[in-house]
Amino acid sequence: MVEWLASFGKTNTNGVTRQLYSKEWTLAQEALKSRMESVGLNAYYDDVGNLFGRLTGTHTHSACILTGSHIDTVIDGGKYDGAYGVIAGLIALEYLYKHYGLPRKTIEVVSLCEEEGSRFPMTYWGSGSITGIKSYEDVCKLRDLDGISFVDAMNNAGFGQGKYLHPKRENIDCFLELHIEQGEILEREQRQIGIVSHIVGQRRYTITIIGESNHAGTTPMVWRKDALHTASELIQTLMQRTTETSLDLVSTVGQIEVEPNLSNVIPKKVTFSMDIRHSNEHVLNTFCNEIFREFEQIVGKHGTQLTIHNWMNELPVKMDEALNKIAGSILEKEKVPFKKMSSGAGHDSQVFGRICPTLLLFVPSHKGISHSPYEHTKTEDLVKGIELLIKILFELAY
Amino acid sequence: MVEWLASFGKTNTNGVTRQLYSKEWTLAQEALKSRMESVGLNAYYDDVGNLFGRLTGTHTHSACILTGSHIDTVIDGGKYDGAYGVIAGLIALEYLYKHYGLPRKTIEVVSLCEEEGSRFPMTYWGSGSITGIKSYEDVCKLRDLDGISFVDAMNNAGFGQGKYLHPKRENIDCFLELHIEQGEILEREQRQIGIVSHIVGQRRYTITIIGESNHAGTTPMVWRKDALHTASELIQTLMQRTTETSLDLVSTVGQIEVEPNLSNVIPKKVTFSMDIRHSNEHVLNTFCNEIFREFEQIVGKHGTQLTIHNWMNELPVKMDEALNKIAGSILEKEKVPFKKMSSGAGHDSQVFGRICPTLLLFVPSHKGISHSPYEHTKTEDLVKGIELLIKILFELAY
Repeated sequence: MVEWLASFGKTNTNGVTRQLYSKEWTLAQEALKSRMESVGLNAYYDDVGNLFGRLTGTHTHSACILTGSHIDTVIDGGKYDGAYGVIAGLIALEYLYKHYGLPRKTIEVVSLCEEEGSRFPMTYWGSGSITGIKSYEDVCKLRDLDGISFVDAMNNAGFGQGKYLHPKRENIDCFLELHIEQGEILEREQRQIGIVSHIVGQRRYTITIIGESNHAGTTPMVWRKDALHTASELIQTLMQRTTETSLDLVSTVGQIEVEPNLSNVIPKKVTFSMDIRHSNEHVLNTFCNEIFREFEQIVGKHGTQLTIHNWMNELPVKMDEALNKIAGSILEKEKVPFKKMSSGAGHDSQVFGRICPTLLLFVPSHKGISHSPYEHTKTEDLVKGIELLIKILFELAY
Repeated sequence: MVEWLASFGKTNTNGVTRQLYSKEWTLAQEALKSRMESVGLNAYYDDVGNLFGRLTGTHTHSACILTGSHIDTVIDGGKYDGAYGVIAGLIALEYLYKHYGLPRKTIEVVSLCEEEGSRFPMTYWGSGSITGIKSYEDVCKLRDLDGISFVDAMNNAGFGQGKYLHPKRENIDCFLELHIEQGEILEREQRQIGIVSHIVGQRRYTITIIGESNHAGTTPMVWRKDALHTASELIQTLMQRTTETSLDLVSTVGQIEVEPNLSNVIPKKVTFSMDIRHSNEHVLNTFCNEIFREFEQIVGKHGTQLTIHNWMNELPVKMDEALNKIAGSILEKEKVPFKKMSSGAGHDSQVFGRICPTLLLFVPSHKGISHSPYEHTKTEDLVKGIELLIKILFELAY
């Protein structure tokens, strides 16, 4: 079924490109809708294109248990990221309905319209619309790289015109998401399931160092104000402090630009990115304060100037302890090797986690590869994840 | 006279652009030729466009003392780099002839056609042709950024067709060059003249680090093979060892490229330039060997891979001790503050220095600025340089 869904937007490299409101996306949602209906679910869209498959409860009609993930992909992405959570929910509901009939509590599987932000400069449109964190005002000025406006793309796909239900919902009891890890912790430690305690907070910065350009041959070392030498010491210090501080803290400098970037001229300006993540806001805060204090000392020593620009500050989101306990007990009973862990990547669960109890479960990713046609999870791990989801849903809804 | 010469190729920013074989270059050489003739020198070109002004000796006709520098500039360069040495030679010969008549030994001033390599990818064409280190084969395939071939440019300027003397000369007794420092050592130390003992050797390398791209959020620090983290430690180590090793050693990392250069992806590849200079080949050798041994250890620790590509290896060139002694005694007698120093930048003297006794003298550069319209040397320093040149030429030739 993973292969079936991956056929919508399949690329030459055996990857998947299925961007929000594209033809491939529309066909995939329509195919999922037919599939939902064929197994007895009540399938419907909301007005932004989130697709739901409903199994109405016999005792409670309105409040519902929601499970699923996102249908969109990055360009030439993998078959599992997002798609696995949607398929898992569909299979789980089909299995439960077939074997146990209607639940006491309503369960819905959702194929969220968008999470990746790979077409428009905006992420979590699906979960953001359901939770009310995002609205039409957030997207009305966006355009994709071809200049197509978000609104036109949405309208062309048949959404955003009030034909369907308004996306915002108040009746979600809890959200359960099954996702590939996109890291290699589970594979390396040979655990079959990851139970996520937190989705980490992220801080992103742009660091600028201003020094002085000078001749590489005629300027003695002691007189230099070398922006790249300064930057190297900052990066080196950041990495060292990160490793010393906490096993769960990660810092990345992925991007760097140098001016004038000539081999025989001392760099006068260096700009680099800084991405810092941890599951505890207090740890993040303390670490950033300390590292920036140290940065100031280093640039002082070099005689260069430092500017720190913070352009993203996402707080850590805690997943629900009670739901984690249910998942943990099932796995313990079955002697399935699992790990309580935090998620270093963002997921729809971090949006739902702000408004309702949320459970995020991981299955292993081979070598941690993701957003790539080489993304892979073993079938037995995929199956184990779905079995776990079925058991949790049974416990919660029947 | 500096201003007069700078009027040929003057730019909007009050700089000078006078590239090899350009219209501005041709006009400047022609104007210099007229000036040479007007003060009684026998002016002539060689076949690559070097311009000579000759004061024939009464005792020796063939072997000659040569003084001068280059006429070409970088794009939007300064008024002094090169030009000062040509003007100084012309004024010196004019003065000597006017006050003392013909010398015993022949003296020639030369306006070398090219040194900067700013039009074609090739430096020291003027001095290289005279010394026989460069020949037509070295330039016949070169083109400038507009696609004009070196040979066409040379022919259009009237050279390279055998109309003039073949450039290679065997009769040069010694070469004397007066040049701006292009650094700020003399100004900072308040010395009026620099006597150059060596022109430093230069080694240039391209260093490549291969690591592994990975997700910035889901990859713990200990599992990373971060090419930029590795590069930072290498650069940091290089700078530290350079400062520790010798006051005269300089190392510059001016250029860096990162792949994929995205803020949330761990860099898989970093390429950076390394420019290392010192006046002693043994020091350069030992330093490079040691630093590369240390580089190997660092990349080993990071689990990344290192490639070192050496693409330039210019040996240090020693200037003539006897000539330096003559200059030193004159300055000592006159109590002019001077400094024995090495030259971190390359000059025509390093080409002549391989085939004949060579003297390179510096005057201060304000703030060390060079290759810029802001290049500046105080008039009193310019005059002091010319006075010194006159005295040395008098001692050698009269």
